[in-house]
Amino acid sequence: MITYPDQIKKAIDTLARLPGLGPKSAERLVFYLVKNGNHTVDTLLEQLSSLRKEIRVCSTCGNIGTTDPCPICANAKRDASLLCVVAEPQDVSVIEKTGDYSGRYHVLGGVLNPVNQITPEKLRIAPLIQRIKTAQPKIAEIIIATNPDLEGESTAMYLARHLKPLNVKVTRLAKGLPMGATIEYADEVTLSSALKGRQSM
Amino acid sequence: MITYPDQIKKAIDTLARLPGLGPKSAERLVFYLVKNGNHTVDTLLEQLSSLRKEIRVCSTCGNIGTTDPCPICANAKRDASLLCVVAEPQDVSVIEKTGDYSGRYHVLGGVLNPVNQITPEKLRIAPLIQRIKTAQPKIAEIIIATNPDLEGESTAMYLARHLKPLNVKVTRLAKGLPMGATIEYADEVTLSSALKGRQSM
Repeated sequence: MITYPDQIKKAIDTLARLPGLGPKSAERLVFYLVKNGNHTVDTLLEQLSSLRKEIRVCSTCGNIGTTDPCPICANAKRDASLLCVVAEPQDVSVIEKTGDYSGRYHVLGGVLNPVNQITPEKLRIAPLIQRIKTAQPKIAEIIIATNPDLEGESTAMYLARHLKPLNVKVTRLAKGLPMGATIEYADEVTLSSALKGRQSM
Repeated sequence: MITYPDQIKKAIDTLARLPGLGPKSAERLVFYLVKNGNHTVDTLLEQLSSLRKEIRVCSTCGNIGTTDPCPICANAKRDASLLCVVAEPQDVSVIEKTGDYSGRYHVLGGVLNPVNQITPEKLRIAPLIQRIKTAQPKIAEIIIATNPDLEGESTAMYLARHLKPLNVKVTRLAKGLPMGATIEYADEVTLSSALKGRQSM
């Protein structure tokens, strides 16, 4: 029995371990790359090297960028009294796209998850507390913008418990029905949040 | 509004164009690579370069490997009178895994698909005909193992029409119910194939 050459097997193995890919999709990718000649592979090689060399983590907020401090931390026009705590750098970009937030960010680098050994020490929580204690001007409000799921909620609760003693207002993104939702098919937790958080018109 | 650095945008763009990936999964991949440090990126860089440098296409059968001719074409013990025609190199590997085939292969490099401009000239059909005409010893049977879908069937029919005049037996993989199938839920085309191809026990 003849199987794939080693180079192909190894590339499939590595790709299959990336998030969102499995053995079959990795196989498909590798054969696509082999079949479609060298242009795509060259582009990928170049772009991955540049990721590796040029992308750095902002030492203030934990966001990623090409500079340290990142453009948001370096921007004096951003409201320094407002701090939005997110799990991942992607979340910064999504909130920026709303155009409705002018404060700064703090990226935790994940959410608490005891099953996967993600304990508070693994996240950028100590730097967050340090940042709140030493910030000039003082930070007035911390908006916790972790996902409304099990890990996100417990991270938010953990943060609230540890941040409130610092004399800072701690808020959480509103929970409720998403735009375009059908009440008939909404789950009861969402609907219950939407009821509790109802707003006057 | 602050968006992603250029390096990240470009890597997302390139990955999103690969089969099976879209903008969101590409974004997830890139952030995973950025977050998980340089080890994975280095491994990927190395493996993609080695794919690019060391993998070649067998000039006899069109399969991919590290040598030309590939190990199957070079193996004198394989039955040279039996030729299995497949669409892609992956198909060779799947048929090899059955352990039930001892002949040789011919990889077309795709299937006919007029909508995507895959015409007979784009596939390795002319080399196949040439190979059948010049093979020593003569090829006795061609097994067409393209997928039993619209494109695979029309490719098989096209091949049968062009290969039969060469005085060679042309066969096609059996169609029928797959192992574990439920007759109740089988589609009528499969069931009809299973009936037509019924075998004595």
